[in-house]
Amino acid sequence: MEKQIILKNRPKGEPSEADFEFQEIESQEPKAGQVLLESIFISVDPYLRGRMRDEESYIEPFEVGKPIESMIVAKVLKSHNPTLEAGDHVIGMLDWKTKQVHSGENLRKIDSAVAPLSAYLGVLGLTGLTAFLALDKIGDLKSGETLLVSGAAGAVGSVVGQIGKIKGCKVVGIAGSDEKIQHIKEKFGFDDGINYKTTKDMKKAIEEACPEGVDVYFDNVGGEILDATLQNINKAARIINCGAISIYNKTEIPTGPRPEGILIKKSALMQGFLVRDHMAEFESAIKQLAGWLQEGKLKYDETIVNGFENTPKAFIQLFEGKNTGKMLVKI
Amino acid sequence: MEKQIILKNRPKGEPSEADFEFQEIESQEPKAGQVLLESIFISVDPYLRGRMRDEESYIEPFEVGKPIESMIVAKVLKSHNPTLEAGDHVIGMLDWKTKQVHSGENLRKIDSAVAPLSAYLGVLGLTGLTAFLALDKIGDLKSGETLLVSGAAGAVGSVVGQIGKIKGCKVVGIAGSDEKIQHIKEKFGFDDGINYKTTKDMKKAIEEACPEGVDVYFDNVGGEILDATLQNINKAARIINCGAISIYNKTEIPTGPRPEGILIKKSALMQGFLVRDHMAEFESAIKQLAGWLQEGKLKYDETIVNGFENTPKAFIQLFEGKNTGKMLVKI
Repeated sequence: MEKQIILKNRPKGEPSEADFEFQEIESQEPKAGQVLLESIFISVDPYLRGRMRDEESYIEPFEVGKPIESMIVAKVLKSHNPTLEAGDHVIGMLDWKTKQVHSGENLRKIDSAVAPLSAYLGVLGLTGLTAFLALDKIGDLKSGETLLVSGAAGAVGSVVGQIGKIKGCKVVGIAGSDEKIQHIKEKFGFDDGINYKTTKDMKKAIEEACPEGVDVYFDNVGGEILDATLQNINKAARIINCGAISIYNKTEIPTGPRPEGILIKKSALMQGFLVRDHMAEFESAIKQLAGWLQEGKLKYDETIVNGFENTPKAFIQLFEGKNTGKMLVKI
Repeated sequence: MEKQIILKNRPKGEPSEADFEFQEIESQEPKAGQVLLESIFISVDPYLRGRMRDEESYIEPFEVGKPIESMIVAKVLKSHNPTLEAGDHVIGMLDWKTKQVHSGENLRKIDSAVAPLSAYLGVLGLTGLTAFLALDKIGDLKSGETLLVSGAAGAVGSVVGQIGKIKGCKVVGIAGSDEKIQHIKEKFGFDDGINYKTTKDMKKAIEEACPEGVDVYFDNVGGEILDATLQNINKAARIINCGAISIYNKTEIPTGPRPEGILIKKSALMQGFLVRDHMAEFESAIKQLAGWLQEGKLKYDETIVNGFENTPKAFIQLFEGKNTGKMLVKI
């Protein structure tokens, strides 16, 4: 018997373990064209919270009673598909199951000789791609500019900051503890950091950390930190709306100061970014990221939670800020 | 003796006639290099309200006790400047004075044979340029897309709609009376219109008028109409934040639903636009606009108020929606 995790209820506000249910399922045999996969690493990501809502979005909502899916690194145990063979490692959008039969489509082979398998879910996966492509498409970083990043110790934020340094920017990170601030400065080379949990006046703190103003703000959190940043942007600033973890768990659209006046005054831009819109560029972006990784210019953190049974807990902990870097579950 | 209008007090909320003062000034003679100008048409514009605030912006605030300035069409009465001669018509950023001595710098000669003098303050002036360049730089209109315009009967909005039709878009306008809606359909070729003053549910009204969703929203008003539009945007929509007349008179930054969640979900863009950032392209844009004007593809309205003494009143009436198209004062 194998195990799977289904969505039991749509969470109201913060997700809880009661919103998930473990089920035993019978082992299956792959048919012609199919493969049998064993999950090795499961990626848990804030955007999954959005898929738990029953509303139209860029990706269809999860169904209650059906397994959750996310990016998973798996090993091919058996293959009746000519493109894969037993022993291959693959990455793809897969069900939260210990083992599963799969068509073999939309899986990508990955090589543990180039980077550790877990890196393909982080710095070489959607998080690294998000950082790279959002900066490329919207950020348009120029040497000497000031780049501010929220969620700076997170999987996306830490790559964003390092790319900022590679591009010659001054990089300031916002994170939720003094340890995280110290860490992003020491490990990832951020020039400065702001602990938003101990800062009363974020507008002033950003002004002090970015005395020349903010040219690019890579926003992973939305909400009041975005408001405070808007008061510190330079002419022609670019704000990348990549995530809004501060509002994902709200049951109504939260209100805040209207941005349109500032956007006009500063000829500034706010643009939402979804990495899935840019799949055609994944291969070239991964090549660039892998190159920096091998040159030692790109470092990364991962928080690995052990055990399939801890997958919902790991997901919930994302919203409590307990991870440093990419949050993964090792089966 | 000549007359001038100075800023007496910074308006609190809606501007009133008491915020302005008329003064008599002595006639002056131009010195070497200077010209003597007689004002013919004064442009009154919503953005002038912003300059009446004492705060940092894209353009320096007016000083209390000093003349207001705006774009003015004037006639050269005397010239000691080799680039201009008596009888020339010019346009430039000039003081609200009946006559004034000027350095001759940053004035542009205009030709009444190409278009009526007043058109240089409207369809061939900053309002036409704003419509053309904002659509060019941010709108990126594609044939078959849906373009929604607020302030549609205004000087900028009416040109925006007509350019949308020239580009093959479906064009829907938002304005404040049934007469204005009828007018933008009949005179400017808008496909449909929404009277926001008699509409209770703007979200639903936009949905009905734009059944295929909004691809480009040209926003002259900000506030609740922007909120309602955000709920109807398509994937990769472009929102041009060109004006926010609904919030200019507020004394505090008003609040509203946070846009970042929708921007992310739709990979959409909101970008502030200031025409002054694009001065290098004015000449080529005016050429294109004048071409459309002469081909009869571009029509325009103007509301002309007579008399220098009515200039403050004309400015105040902008915020009461009393103008149709460009609001001008004829001296």
